[in-house]
Amino acid sequence: MSAAIQALELSEKKDIIALCGDLAEKFIKRAPKYDKEGSFPVENFQDLKDAGLLGIMIPKEHGGMGADFLTYTKALEQLAMGCSSTALTFNMHNIAVGSIAELNLKGIGGSRGKTMTEFRDWVYDQSISHKKVFASASSEPGIGAHFSKLKTTYKRVEDGFVINGTKSFVSMAGYADYYVVAAKAADSDSEVPAISYLVVEKDHPNTTIDFIWDVLGMRATSTNPVHFKDCFVKKEALFLGSEGMALYKIAREPHWLVGGYVGVYLGISTAAFRFMVDFIKKKKIPGTDTSLSEDPKIQHRVGEIYAALESARTVTYNAAMLVRDKLGSQEANNAIHHAKYVAGELGPWLTSQAIRLCGASSLAKVFPLERYYRDSRCGGLMPATSDECLSYMGKAAFGTDLTKPTETYW
Amino acid sequence: MSAAIQALELSEKKDIIALCGDLAEKFIKRAPKYDKEGSFPVENFQDLKDAGLLGIMIPKEHGGMGADFLTYTKALEQLAMGCSSTALTFNMHNIAVGSIAELNLKGIGGSRGKTMTEFRDWVYDQSISHKKVFASASSEPGIGAHFSKLKTTYKRVEDGFVINGTKSFVSMAGYADYYVVAAKAADSDSEVPAISYLVVEKDHPNTTIDFIWDVLGMRATSTNPVHFKDCFVKKEALFLGSEGMALYKIAREPHWLVGGYVGVYLGISTAAFRFMVDFIKKKKIPGTDTSLSEDPKIQHRVGEIYAALESARTVTYNAAMLVRDKLGSQEANNAIHHAKYVAGELGPWLTSQAIRLCGASSLAKVFPLERYYRDSRCGGLMPATSDECLSYMGKAAFGTDLTKPTETYW
Amino acid sequence: MSAAIQALELSEKKDIIALCGDLAEKFIKRAPKYDKEGSFPVENFQDLKDAGLLGIMIPKEHGGMGADFLTYTKALEQLAMGCSSTALTFNMHNIAVGSIAELNLKGIGGSRGKTMTEFRDWVYDQSISHKKVFASASSEPGIGAHFSKLKTTYKRVEDGFVINGTKSFVSMAGYADYYVVAAKAADSDSEVPAISYLVVEKDHPNTTIDFIWDVLGMRATSTNPVHFKDCFVKKEALFLGSEGMALYKIAREPHWLVGGYVGVYLGISTAAFRFMVDFIKKKKIPGTDTSLSEDPKIQHRVGEIYAALESARTVTYNAAMLVRDKLGSQEANNAIHHAKYVAGELGPWLTSQAIRLCGASSLAKVFPLERYYRDSRCGGLMPATSDECLSYMGKAAFGTDLTKPTETYW
Amino acid sequence: MSAAIQALELSEKKDIIALCGDLAEKFIKRAPKYDKEGSFPVENFQDLKDAGLLGIMIPKEHGGMGADFLTYTKALEQLAMGCSSTALTFNMHNIAVGSIAELNLKGIGGSRGKTMTEFRDWVYDQSISHKKVFASASSEPGIGAHFSKLKTTYKRVEDGFVINGTKSFVSMAGYADYYVVAAKAADSDSEVPAISYLVVEKDHPNTTIDFIWDVLGMRATSTNPVHFKDCFVKKEALFLGSEGMALYKIAREPHWLVGGYVGVYLGISTAAFRFMVDFIKKKKIPGTDTSLSEDPKIQHRVGEIYAALESARTVTYNAAMLVRDKLGSQEANNAIHHAKYVAGELGPWLTSQAIRLCGASSLAKVFPLERYYRDSRCGGLMPATSDECLSYMGKAAFGTDLTKPTETYW
Repeated sequence: MSAAIQALELSEKKDIIALCGDLAEKFIKRAPKYDKEGSFPVENFQDLKDAGLLGIMIPKEHGGMGADFLTYTKALEQLAMGCSSTALTFNMHNIAVGSIAELNLKGIGGSRGKTMTEFRDWVYDQSISHKKVFASASSEPGIGAHFSKLKTTYKRVEDGFVINGTKSFVSMAGYADYYVVAAKAADSDSEVPAISYLVVEKDHPNTTIDFIWDVLGMRATSTNPVHFKDCFVKKEALFLGSEGMALYKIAREPHWLVGGYVGVYLGISTAAFRFMVDFIKKKKIPGTDTSLSEDPKIQHRVGEIYAALESARTVTYNAAMLVRDKLGSQEANNAIHHAKYVAGELGPWLTSQAIRLCGASSLAKVFPLERYYRDSRCGGLMPATSDECLSYMGKAAFGTDLTKPTETYW
Repeated sequence: MSAAIQALELSEKKDIIALCGDLAEKFIKRAPKYDKEGSFPVENFQDLKDAGLLGIMIPKEHGGMGADFLTYTKALEQLAMGCSSTALTFNMHNIAVGSIAELNLKGIGGSRGKTMTEFRDWVYDQSISHKKVFASASSEPGIGAHFSKLKTTYKRVEDGFVINGTKSFVSMAGYADYYVVAAKAADSDSEVPAISYLVVEKDHPNTTIDFIWDVLGMRATSTNPVHFKDCFVKKEALFLGSEGMALYKIAREPHWLVGGYVGVYLGISTAAFRFMVDFIKKKKIPGTDTSLSEDPKIQHRVGEIYAALESARTVTYNAAMLVRDKLGSQEANNAIHHAKYVAGELGPWLTSQAIRLCGASSLAKVFPLERYYRDSRCGGLMPATSDECLSYMGKAAFGTDLTKPTETYW
Repeated sequence: MSAAIQALELSEKKDIIALCGDLAEKFIKRAPKYDKEGSFPVENFQDLKDAGLLGIMIPKEHGGMGADFLTYTKALEQLAMGCSSTALTFNMHNIAVGSIAELNLKGIGGSRGKTMTEFRDWVYDQSISHKKVFASASSEPGIGAHFSKLKTTYKRVEDGFVINGTKSFVSMAGYADYYVVAAKAADSDSEVPAISYLVVEKDHPNTTIDFIWDVLGMRATSTNPVHFKDCFVKKEALFLGSEGMALYKIAREPHWLVGGYVGVYLGISTAAFRFMVDFIKKKKIPGTDTSLSEDPKIQHRVGEIYAALESARTVTYNAAMLVRDKLGSQEANNAIHHAKYVAGELGPWLTSQAIRLCGASSLAKVFPLERYYRDSRCGGLMPATSDECLSYMGKAAFGTDLTKPTETYW
Repeated sequence: MSAAIQALELSEKKDIIALCGDLAEKFIKRAPKYDKEGSFPVENFQDLKDAGLLGIMIPKEHGGMGADFLTYTKALEQLAMGCSSTALTFNMHNIAVGSIAELNLKGIGGSRGKTMTEFRDWVYDQSISHKKVFASASSEPGIGAHFSKLKTTYKRVEDGFVINGTKSFVSMAGYADYYVVAAKAADSDSEVPAISYLVVEKDHPNTTIDFIWDVLGMRATSTNPVHFKDCFVKKEALFLGSEGMALYKIAREPHWLVGGYVGVYLGISTAAFRFMVDFIKKKKIPGTDTSLSEDPKIQHRVGEIYAALESARTVTYNAAMLVRDKLGSQEANNAIHHAKYVAGELGPWLTSQAIRLCGASSLAKVFPLERYYRDSRCGGLMPATSDECLSYMGKAAFGTDLTKPTETYW
């Protein structure tokens, strides 16, 4: 690759990140309202659409921005510094689009290749030309994201499929244009069950949503249960035209299901750190005109927090780089679990410490710190959870092959 | 003391704690509403009044319940398990009453003794017969609870005093019947300034309240700024009829200003632990009928959390017992700082871990866990803050005499 | 109990603790040599014998000191501050003697009661009149202290028993006068195997010792493997004349097997803390005449360490008090596991932090701190290990009945 | 740069690292003896010399290996996995050589440039042709590495300098061929004192060594006090021919004084982790034939340790890369302090946890784990200490310019 193209690429990556940084400036002003109401950040998504960001992962030759996973991670970090609910739900869209974009379909010929290509082109077209948003409908009540235990089924019928089941934690429920529903083939009985994805339109008459999302943090994600009752979809709705691959894909390449969250939660911690530094600089040591930042004990503690944050940042960027450069390698997968764990558990600790250092006045809702404290606790609960990541890292250290779905909790 | 009296006493202590436990059952049902609205728990306080608990610290011979500090701490713990805002504000009342109740006025003769006794009897009468509630007005904007830096002043005038200044973080502002205002003598210029307390009636025309309390946690405490502008009070309003003793008193016997919070925050952590255990027992390992509590990894982590909670409990009860048995001793004072630090910083960690183990469904506002997570973060910020407690413990370990106000941050 | 007797008792308890404190002053001078050589602290044990401490747990009416478990714990703490290897091995003796002393044999009549009483009296006589030391031989290679998995067997033969097997980690091997050997009845096949204790004389010709103890810490305990090959003992050698009770006893009353260590490791941490405080007070801030103890950052960190140490102390004393007052209760057993975990894991952290604060010069073998760092790492490895304690606490929190041996790791 | 040259470079870097890995295989066998005796690893240094590694930092055009800082860090890591004392002392040599090698002398003309070039060439020649080893003599009793407080002085005399003072913690004392002595100009009286380096030959008659090194860990480094008494050196002995630059240089580019240790201590932790994984895999769950590595609780804990280790590794490599690519930038300097802190404090925790998981049998001196536990505690004590690094990170977060020596603890 020539130096000129390299420089261009670098600048384009910087442009994407800077673009997201600019949007974040807008988002941060709207964040308190969406958080308070628990309403979906419609204005923010309009901005994302207007900026063409629904195509962030779509290759440039298909009209998208062609972000790699590192650029994408940094873009999410920026967005999350403005509104973490927006960044999180934006990631759900890209889980669908990005996992397609990284496939090399050129080598797949015949009707299979054709079907896949048609599906891909449809997703690209919906995202770019029609500004359509895809949501993920995977988790289930009492099951979480353990795909192998899913109770939602689909049955092959003439010209399509019929889906039955209930999905919990569907972010963007009621807003997204399409749900990508993970379901088990009704007749599957193998140890690794045949799990497939099916695309259902937002207003499909056989879907209902329970609007019950009233929670600690990530309040503006509209993460609600969606029911699918004898819900018919055409055969073109089968994701990538492929049945039964979901579990294998997740085990081999967990970065999309797991890795997207990392940038989001790193962004929250970064925002909290910056707020804290700023707040302490402005605060005076009681009874003096000296900034509290001059207190050597405060410097020490801020140093500890900085160390934890920068460790998480380095680990996160490194993992995203490995996904970019060594997709699906054990090294990349380990790094993703590592980063998910580190960034997921950093937040509650960092924001708690930040409040401790800033003091009682920082608890007020006029400041964003209390929201960061609430939002950040959600990170470790998303798949793969912090404790699942620990198990994966431990098993990998002992040489277990985690590309086998049966060795995972999926 | 005869065994019969001992048994009676023990049973009375148990009665107080059990009474608070019963009230907590009521409070827990009202807690979500008060938390959501950020309104003051008027119904809970009516229950406290009806139960005679405004006199919990008043000796039995004066018509109160005569609780010792250990019994009181356990009572607060019970109340906090129902509604932590109620427990916290109830403690503010007892800071005023309890610090009087532990004085031995018998040895103080003359007019000074008479004034003190009259003041005491007035406070007892207000609390017991008139069900009046006392609030503490100490902290100030930018100064916190650093009494030696207070800007609020009082000036001696004929027949009384005139107060000027602004107090921040006045819990029960607008509800309490009296404010106990810490203020500096306008003419004080010693290294250890003369700080006194003055009692101001709720509806004194020269007071105004800014109702701005909208915060992360402890939302139902109505903790708001109160302004005192040329606010005249009679000379009987001088707390215990004594001027200039506040800083010495706090340094020598920090248990009231510091120690009351400990029971409250221990209560929140206890409630969170119990919720977690219950939640996990009911939850199934995905795809099975086995309780999640059978998972050895979960048992391990719950063991870790139990260890931290029981350490805090043992430390808290031990400190309260030392206050009861060795009031004002260095041992008791160290133990209070120790307990404040431990219980204050336990909560954010424990509730964060509890959410991590319970998973995403535990974030919902239909469960109390997310409130515990929010409320518990406030503990370490109250005086003495976690970091001040660390300094006090460190200094004490090196032999510093913390009964000298100049060695403290007060 | 009359006040006079109470006072006497209190003073006697204080005397025992003070006596051990005095001995510790002697021990601390000898500790470097024994540690360096890895030789057994024969002189220290002679002092223990001379002071009558082999009878510390034996009731006064039988000529002993009649210490309760709290007094005993504090006595161990004192001894460990002088020489932790001495304290640890002294505890091994008391595991045998103390578990007998707390039995109430009065209610047990008939030949069983007679046999038990005779055994008890023999142990008392050996300890007090003959200054004989008992060692515990329980752990086995690859099995540790998991009694239910033991491979050492005993077979009933005419007039006695024949023992076969290898014991690892026998402290005082080569020094103690008797080994109390845990062995499985050769014909036991129940789910909870019949484990009994048998007493073997030091110089029994069918025993051999491998002197291989060369380790990180607790180097002066002579903790070596002992082989028992067709080793015949008379029927009077059966511990308390009872077969098959070992596992039930451990599960129901784990304090002797688990709880003795707690005082020892608390003692090491206490000694390390005191050394640190002293060292820092004497050290100057570089380039000044100011004590390093004036550095606010140092005060902060020392405060953190103090908090952890005092938490462990409070937890330890509380657990020992519960053993004293509520022997065998779930509350006492939980508290022992809790204390074992806390004190066991405190040491490595506390000593590591102490070295960090004291700096590189504190690493020298002329100071005891580096020995504390090494010795303290052993605590969590002794039964029940830190991780077993975590599991026990977790299980107990979920309501598991740990008095059933099958619910434990023993 | 052409792809061919890039590939060659990469392969050369790999060669250096692989070479050090091969040497480590030899070192690990010798490590127990050197550790036990506290003797200097002469054989290991002979291997380093034979392999040409004294020139690892010297550019290839001058006959060295031309390692960059990242390659060097990885090389140290490899060496430390064999013998940490060897790696640590090898780093001392490279502190002298490497800080010269990274200078660009081309732009410096005149007599100053000539003097510097001559000094550089002499150091290169001594290292490569004469296999001479340089030691650092900086720290002083009661002062540590706080250069601005040094008491050792040098006085300009005809044709040279006279040094007086005592250096503590001189690693390789008695082995190294030259001491690079940090000393203060006797007539310096500015706020930032004029500190210079002077090279003294090993056998200079006016030097004496106290062989007193008997410590917890890093026992084979021969780190002893060296006295310089009216010690004359020629003017060519002035390091780089420059006076008074030491403090500025350290503040601006702390990577040599601080960063070299990072690779060493990362190596110890890596070796401990690998030992632990191997040990646990071979160990059986008591009473079974199942590897302990199958225990889900163990997997969890190993996952936690892996996460901490990989965080430290990522942070370390990233810092070394920044030194390589952005020498002297604030980003690189922060990263070095960050890495030093993380790697320095990781070791004691990681090795402590590894012992906890491996159990009591892992304490034996036949295994290296107990040595890792001891050696690793030294990391955080070396300059900049863990607590200094925290302060630096905290100050940098608040915007302090740490390139000013007065803002540092040097």
